[in-house]
Amino acid sequence: SKEIPLDEEDKWENSEYFSSYGQLKLHSEMLTDVPRTSTYSLAIQSALPWLQDKVVLDVGSGTGILSLFCARYGKPKKVYAVEASDIAVYSRETVSKNGYEDVIEVIQGNINDISLPHHQVDWIISEWMGTLLLFEFMIESVINARDKFLKPDGMIWPSEAELFLIPCSALSAYNGSMGIWKDVYGFDFSPYLSLAADTLTGKPIYNHTLSPDECLSEPFTILQLNMKTVTVSQLEDIRTAYDFLVKRSGMLHGFASYFTVHFSHLPHPHTPVTLSTSPQSKPTHWKQDLLLLDSPLQLEEGQRLKGTIKLTRHKLWRRHLRVTLTYSVWEDDTELNEAVTKIYRLWR
Amino acid sequence: SKEIPLDEEDKWENSEYFSSYGQLKLHSEMLTDVPRTSTYSLAIQSALPWLQDKVVLDVGSGTGILSLFCARYGKPKKVYAVEASDIAVYSRETVSKNGYEDVIEVIQGNINDISLPHHQVDWIISEWMGTLLLFEFMIESVINARDKFLKPDGMIWPSEAELFLIPCSALSAYNGSMGIWKDVYGFDFSPYLSLAADTLTGKPIYNHTLSPDECLSEPFTILQLNMKTVTVSQLEDIRTAYDFLVKRSGMLHGFASYFTVHFSHLPHPHTPVTLSTSPQSKPTHWKQDLLLLDSPLQLEEGQRLKGTIKLTRHKLWRRHLRVTLTYSVWEDDTELNEAVTKIYRLWR
Ligand SMILES: [Ca+2]
Ligand SMILES: [Ca+2]
Repeated sequence: SKEIPLDEEDKWENSEYFSSYGQLKLHSEMLTDVPRTSTYSLAIQSALPWLQDKVVLDVGSGTGILSLFCARYGKPKKVYAVEASDIAVYSRETVSKNGYEDVIEVIQGNINDISLPHHQVDWIISEWMGTLLLFEFMIESVINARDKFLKPDGMIWPSEAELFLIPCSALSAYNGSMGIWKDVYGFDFSPYLSLAADTLTGKPIYNHTLSPDECLSEPFTILQLNMKTVTVSQLEDIRTAYDFLVKRSGMLHGFASYFTVHFSHLPHPHTPVTLSTSPQSKPTHWKQDLLLLDSPLQLEEGQRLKGTIKLTRHKLWRRHLRVTLTYSVWEDDTELNEAVTKIYRLWR
Repeated sequence: SKEIPLDEEDKWENSEYFSSYGQLKLHSEMLTDVPRTSTYSLAIQSALPWLQDKVVLDVGSGTGILSLFCARYGKPKKVYAVEASDIAVYSRETVSKNGYEDVIEVIQGNINDISLPHHQVDWIISEWMGTLLLFEFMIESVINARDKFLKPDGMIWPSEAELFLIPCSALSAYNGSMGIWKDVYGFDFSPYLSLAADTLTGKPIYNHTLSPDECLSEPFTILQLNMKTVTVSQLEDIRTAYDFLVKRSGMLHGFASYFTVHFSHLPHPHTPVTLSTSPQSKPTHWKQDLLLLDSPLQLEEGQRLKGTIKLTRHKLWRRHLRVTLTYSVWEDDTELNEAVTKIYRLWR
C-alpha cells in the first residue's frame, strides 16, 4: 500500500529483477534474436578503428556478448562488463574460455555501487530497451553510468532512441481480450467485460505481432532521446499530443508502439546502424506493444485521430510506469466522438 | 527448505493457485480453446436425456461454461458450480444474466470445505487436466469430490484419462535450450551448458507444438486412469517401463507427452466423445509437453528405445511433481549406449 514507506531496494525490486535476468531462458531468447544481436555486432564493427585502445563499459552485460564483440573486433584497452545477476559468474568463465580474460573484466554488481580501476571510460555500450522502450527503467542505470564514468567527450551506444505510436487493427487480440465476452457459445458473458477492461486491456500486451497492413496511419514519434544528454528527471513524466491522419479505413482496436535505437556519433565516416522493432522490420523478441481499446472505433480514410499520450513513471515502484491515452476522431473540424481516456499499467 | 514444517495451506499454495485462476486471461484462453470447450459441449449433449432431473457438481467451475452447457441442454434438477477463486462472483452474475439462476448455484469455496444442499450428486463434471495431465493436482479435488458427494451409481466426467509418451525430434527447441551454447556468433559459450541442463532442460517445456512428422515412433501409454476408481495414493508414485520401436530414423531430442480424456459410461447408447491433445489432433491450449535431452541421439529405423519413466509427486509441495526418465537405445539384443537418466521438475 502507498502508506508504507519503502526502502530503495524495495522500490527497485532488484532481487526480483536481477534474479529473472539470472535466468538463462531470457538470455537464450536475446541471443537468438538475430536482428538484435547482429545489429549490435554490426554497429560495433562500424566503430573500428576508433575502438582501438579505448576503455569500454558494458552496462548490464548479461552473457557478455557485447563485450566479446568489442574485444574480438576492436582491440580495446579494456572492457568492463558490469552485470548484477548471477549470470556474471558464467560470463566470466566464458570470457576466459574464449581467451579474452586480459581484455574483458567481468564485475558482478550494480552499476551504482561499483568502482572501476579506470575511473573514466571512453565508451558505454548497453542493451537496456524494454516494453514501451522504458519499462523496467534499466535506462536509469545507463544514465547513471554515463554521469559517473563517461569522459566528457566519450560516446554512449545506443546514441539515440525513439518511441513510436501507431493506430491499428488487432482483431484477434481484441477478440481474445474483449470481443469474446459478448457471445461465448451463445451465452452472454458480459459480466466479465468490466474485469476484462481492468485486467486484460488495462495493461499493454507486450508480445503482440502487428502486421504492416493492420496499421491505419503513419507512425507518430512520441519520444526522442539523446542518450548523451537525457536526464532521469526527463523520464518521470512524458506527455505528447498526437495527430494521426487515417490512411486506410478500418477498425481501430488499439495503438501499437515500437522503438528504434541508433548507433552513431562516431568521429569517422561510417554506415549509420539502426535497430528497429517496427512491424516493417525483421521480428525481434520485443515484437510490438499493443494498447487495446475497450471498444473499437471504425475509422475512415482522411479522418484524423487526435489525442495525447502520457508516460508516467511510478513514483513508488521505480521500474513501473503508466500510460494514459486520450483519443477522439475528427472529420474536418468536427470531433465525432467524445474524447476517451484509458490508463494502462506496467505493472502497477 | 525441507526443514521447515509447512501447514496444509502452504503445501497446496492455494492462495497463489486460486489467484492465478482468478485471472481472466487464463479463462479467456480456455474458452477460446475450441477443441477443449466444444468437446465438453458435445459430450454434454451426448448425455441427454440422461441428464434430466439429475444433480450435477461442476468441480472448479471457473467461468461456469460447463454448468451453463448442462443447464442449457440437459434439464438437470440442479447444477452446483464450485469455484474457489474470485471468478466465482462474475460467474454467478453470468448465470443470472443468462436466466439460469434457478438451476445453477455458484458456490465460492474449496471443494474440501463446502457442503451441498443435496448431499449427494448424480454426476461430477470437471476440467482438471494440466501439464503432463497431472500437474497442479486439481485431480485430487475431483477425487475428493467424488468420494464426498457422488452417489455410488453416479457418473464422473471425464470418465477415463490417458497419458502418452512419444520419442521425437525437436530441433529448434533443442537449439534454443542446449544447441545454442556451442557456438554463439563464433564464441564458445559452453560454460552455460551445465546451467542450461539444470534450468532449461531440467523442466518440461509445456508450450511445445510437436508436428506429427517429428514423431519417431508410435506413442506409449504411460498412465491410464479410471476416474470412478482411481485413488489419490495411486498418483503419488507412478512408474512404467516403455519399449519404443523406432519407425523413422532421425535425431532424438526428447520425449513429448500428451493426454486424452474420455466421456463415456452413459447408461444409453451414445457416440463416445474424446478430447485429445495429441500432435495429430486439433491444437489445444495445452499443446504438447516436451522433455528435452541434454544430448541428442541419432536413432535408426528398427532400433528400440527402452527405459522407464517415473512420475513422483512432491511430498511437500502437493501441486508439484518430478519426472525421472531413463533411456537407452537397443539394436537386436545389444544396448548401444549406457542408460541415461534425467530428472525434470514441475516446478520443485
Ligand atoms: Ca531488455
Ligand atoms: Ca486446466
